[in-house]
Amino acid sequence: MPTYKAPVDDVKFLLEDVFGIERYNNLPGFADASPDIVEAILSEAAKFCQEVLFPLNRVGDHEGCKRGPDGSVTTPKGFKDAYRQLVEGGWIGISAPTEFGGQGLPVLLTEAVNEFLCSANMAFAMYSGLTQGAIAALYAHGTPEQKATYLPKMIEGRWTGTMNLTEPHCGTDLGLLRTKAVPQADGSYKITGTKIFISAGEHDLSDNIIHLVISRIAGAPEGTKGISLFVVPKFLVNADGSLGARNALVCGSLEEKMGIHGNSTCVMNYDGATGWLMGEANRGLSAMFTMMNEARLGVGVQGLALSEVAYQNAAAYAKERLQGRALSGAKFPDKSADPIIVHPDVRRTLMTIRSFNEAARALVMWTALYSDIAHHSEDEKQRRDADDQMGLLTPVIKGVLTDQGFANTVMAQQMFGGHGYIAEHGMEQFVRDARIAMMYEGANGIQALDLVGRKLPKDGGRAVMAFFNEVQAFINEKKSDATMKPYVEPLNVALGHLQQATMWFMQNALGKPDNAGAGAMDYMHLFGLVALGYMWCRMIAAAGVKLKAGANGSAERMNSKLVTGRFFMERMLPETAAQLARIQAGAESTMALPPEAF
Amino acid sequence: MPTYKAPVDDVKFLLEDVFGIERYNNLPGFADASPDIVEAILSEAAKFCQEVLFPLNRVGDHEGCKRGPDGSVTTPKGFKDAYRQLVEGGWIGISAPTEFGGQGLPVLLTEAVNEFLCSANMAFAMYSGLTQGAIAALYAHGTPEQKATYLPKMIEGRWTGTMNLTEPHCGTDLGLLRTKAVPQADGSYKITGTKIFISAGEHDLSDNIIHLVISRIAGAPEGTKGISLFVVPKFLVNADGSLGARNALVCGSLEEKMGIHGNSTCVMNYDGATGWLMGEANRGLSAMFTMMNEARLGVGVQGLALSEVAYQNAAAYAKERLQGRALSGAKFPDKSADPIIVHPDVRRTLMTIRSFNEAARALVMWTALYSDIAHHSEDEKQRRDADDQMGLLTPVIKGVLTDQGFANTVMAQQMFGGHGYIAEHGMEQFVRDARIAMMYEGANGIQALDLVGRKLPKDGGRAVMAFFNEVQAFINEKKSDATMKPYVEPLNVALGHLQQATMWFMQNALGKPDNAGAGAMDYMHLFGLVALGYMWCRMIAAAGVKLKAGANGSAERMNSKLVTGRFFMERMLPETAAQLARIQAGAESTMALPPEAF
Repeated sequence: MPTYKAPVDDVKFLLEDVFGIERYNNLPGFADASPDIVEAILSEAAKFCQEVLFPLNRVGDHEGCKRGPDGSVTTPKGFKDAYRQLVEGGWIGISAPTEFGGQGLPVLLTEAVNEFLCSANMAFAMYSGLTQGAIAALYAHGTPEQKATYLPKMIEGRWTGTMNLTEPHCGTDLGLLRTKAVPQADGSYKITGTKIFISAGEHDLSDNIIHLVISRIAGAPEGTKGISLFVVPKFLVNADGSLGARNALVCGSLEEKMGIHGNSTCVMNYDGATGWLMGEANRGLSAMFTMMNEARLGVGVQGLALSEVAYQNAAAYAKERLQGRALSGAKFPDKSADPIIVHPDVRRTLMTIRSFNEAARALVMWTALYSDIAHHSEDEKQRRDADDQMGLLTPVIKGVLTDQGFANTVMAQQMFGGHGYIAEHGMEQFVRDARIAMMYEGANGIQALDLVGRKLPKDGGRAVMAFFNEVQAFINEKKSDATMKPYVEPLNVALGHLQQATMWFMQNALGKPDNAGAGAMDYMHLFGLVALGYMWCRMIAAAGVKLKAGANGSAERMNSKLVTGRFFMERMLPETAAQLARIQAGAESTMALPPEAF
Repeated sequence: MPTYKAPVDDVKFLLEDVFGIERYNNLPGFADASPDIVEAILSEAAKFCQEVLFPLNRVGDHEGCKRGPDGSVTTPKGFKDAYRQLVEGGWIGISAPTEFGGQGLPVLLTEAVNEFLCSANMAFAMYSGLTQGAIAALYAHGTPEQKATYLPKMIEGRWTGTMNLTEPHCGTDLGLLRTKAVPQADGSYKITGTKIFISAGEHDLSDNIIHLVISRIAGAPEGTKGISLFVVPKFLVNADGSLGARNALVCGSLEEKMGIHGNSTCVMNYDGATGWLMGEANRGLSAMFTMMNEARLGVGVQGLALSEVAYQNAAAYAKERLQGRALSGAKFPDKSADPIIVHPDVRRTLMTIRSFNEAARALVMWTALYSDIAHHSEDEKQRRDADDQMGLLTPVIKGVLTDQGFANTVMAQQMFGGHGYIAEHGMEQFVRDARIAMMYEGANGIQALDLVGRKLPKDGGRAVMAFFNEVQAFINEKKSDATMKPYVEPLNVALGHLQQATMWFMQNALGKPDNAGAGAMDYMHLFGLVALGYMWCRMIAAAGVKLKAGANGSAERMNSKLVTGRFFMERMLPETAAQLARIQAGAESTMALPPEAF
């Protein structure tokens, strides 16, 4: 039977010891996030995820969602009751604005809880995850009336949200979209078109579904400059807030897909559905990016979450499965064989995943902290700098955490041999579920281009220079400390590779952008390794402080950090040299063949 | 709709231009493999695979196999008729001994055809693939009576074969097996026990199923030294060759698994089933390894085969899907967008897969040629040397071609974005099917240990020294040739890394075997890159000769080789430096944590 235990202690270590959130008590919500409140939230979330959601994970995969002839969608057995508990627990609105009923706590906490939710049941967690994205977009771009109408119910969770971008012929290139919006006399619009791959597009969990739909207003310019964003509820809302008529939209079919069967992936048909403009006309794409950026961070968390739950199950199996003997001689001569955790290749696998997970969790927390600062600091420069880092790190988190998260589920599955391939142990579901995160919310190739083509050059490279300076300053500060040396020295080498790669782009990609495109994916992963390596150094420094102070019962965990961080430096960081070599190879052999040769 | 075209021209280039099989006309079967016979076999196989098997691939995945209450198993619609055509075409016995009805052609051709079969329909191809393995084991270890009884019908394909090793509590560590064999007065044995993960264990394609089962004779020693191999037919065979009574064995259930749904993966219950000893008592494991080694080469081919069909579909999609514009400016301004093949990251993906596939196919052909020489040469030293190389390369082919083959299916799927995640395009099936190849016939971690722990030190390192010498001699011969220089120089660097890694093991792993275990996986992949890089150099040299000679209408293909080989050198080989660094990091941080810390 698959198993899951939420990493509450690790999150607390990050919040309290590594990032010291009490230093941010001047930000709204942070003072409320006292250690006991944090403890209560995390342990309650852990309990809900472990006891309610995780047992439904296999059920959801096995049953999937079912569409009725009327276009209604039934979620798997148990999802409805679990969703009711999610709403009652107030889990959707932890960080939502208090003025609309949210708890206003730091985004840090939402991301921590979202990791637990996705580890326990990713398909289920997507229903609330998309709602959180829609809340963010409505809060940023909605009119006061729209906010008042939709936000309280969505923050409570009684209504859910979706984002409708993709059409059959266009995904990445939204400028090609064909969905039309025709203005009506009353200020509303009639929306007509077909959207595909709409997660949570129709289901039986909530009373209403608030679709955010991009569409072209009749007569608007072609391309991305003629795209507007609309709010299109499944049920129209009366002036008193009660539900009115059914809107002219329907789920046309459900996709047959590789995984996340518990989430309804819908073809949505809008047939003159009533919608209202959100934000300015023809500026819908930038408004949608508010939601996309939230969502991209959330998708990165999915990569981490599945890597974590896969790791836990692989570790449990490695300690329990008896097979063969240790290379250095039997460790349990009284048993018929040793547990496979004695084998170095099994250890290598576990350490690879673990050393990634712990650093990835830190990177998510760090970025979420930037999000809180960017939204709430009273200092304009601080807000700007935090926003810079958030923008820089978001594609890295989305791309690297989902690529590596998926690879880790595959590695964890591998440890089970043939038993990993059958449904019983749950490992193959983790692989199938994790796979989507590399593709949706902008396929990872797009994340790499966003990083290299947009985020690097933005504002004269201000964000990336600030990142380099911060990492370099940390290295300089710690390099003479003997206990930190084995960590900061490899990081310094990796940072050097990243800086050389950045320089190479500056010198070779301006005149020939294909050189940037051909190296973008390697650059994103190189950036990821440096960022994760930096997180390890921050964690090692914090663990050192904690150990010196007596560690308060966490000495074993802190000592494990020292080993796991060393493994990361020795085994993960060497890849940066290969990434740099590939980047510097440029685009020539990549682009040389004519298309017809393929 | 998914598409597949067998790479007939590429196989012919390898056979004729790269490996010059006409030079081996002294070996039995090779003289019969004249260019026109080869052409006929490959093009007929291509036609059968493209037109009959490939259309059934999706059907097989969707329907799966069904078990009836009596333990019978029904294969998906269309499989039975396709199997009949396979038998009529004589495809199973291409390289089987002529004395039992085979065609006695080189193993080279069987491996080429098996690639086509697996690309078209891996689940289907497993029925005949396992039969070929069982034929090899029976031919090598069966008594004359057993051979006469079983081989003609199996080579024809009217009867199929299986291998029964795994039990619920033991897979890798077969010494733990519990299946019992009790000797009977008539010389037969009664076999009792449960075997799991038995591919093609029960189905409706053939008249009889010949199970090769490992089991412990009552009173035999514990562990691997007490294992014997038995032939256990589903129907007992009368003296005249007709089918007799049903044997006491039954399919207890079918596994619910991630992919290869068209193949029946059975729990097999033996309840006093009648079997006959094959080979010596208590020496069953080494007999089984005859079959395993054949099977491992075949599984490596599966990795290549799925990488190839995934590549072809990704390339077709890249040329057809319109989305966005080239970084260097619109290439098709008259269309609504450019096809995505203009994007460097899409090209990088296609070139990565392609540069692997072409070299992997060469490596399979090269190893199959060694197999032919090892089995048929009249020169004892030549046989021994060929056997050395086959033994050395088999774990590399199994481990590297399936790891990278799977990774390639994932990369190819990625190019489709969300469309890759749904069943319609077939990409997610390639991923699910390819996944098993990394796990069965010895999980890839076991292949790495086999390479490092067994094949490297064997006979004082004779095999690996011969491999190094051959590659080094080729480099030395070509390095002053200006056209070869860009290829052999990077290969020389990679070979140096491999030699350093080998030396490091010699110096650091004898006293501390964990150092070998912790580096084994990287070593296997490092070895793979050197072997594939060597294959590229051989292909480039052959392409150069062909281009100089006028190329006979293949100039475009040969020029593509020059580019694709360069891509491999620039983009794939740099990884060897990182692999060496990880190997040299040793086992310390990998093994430092106590088991309870996981």
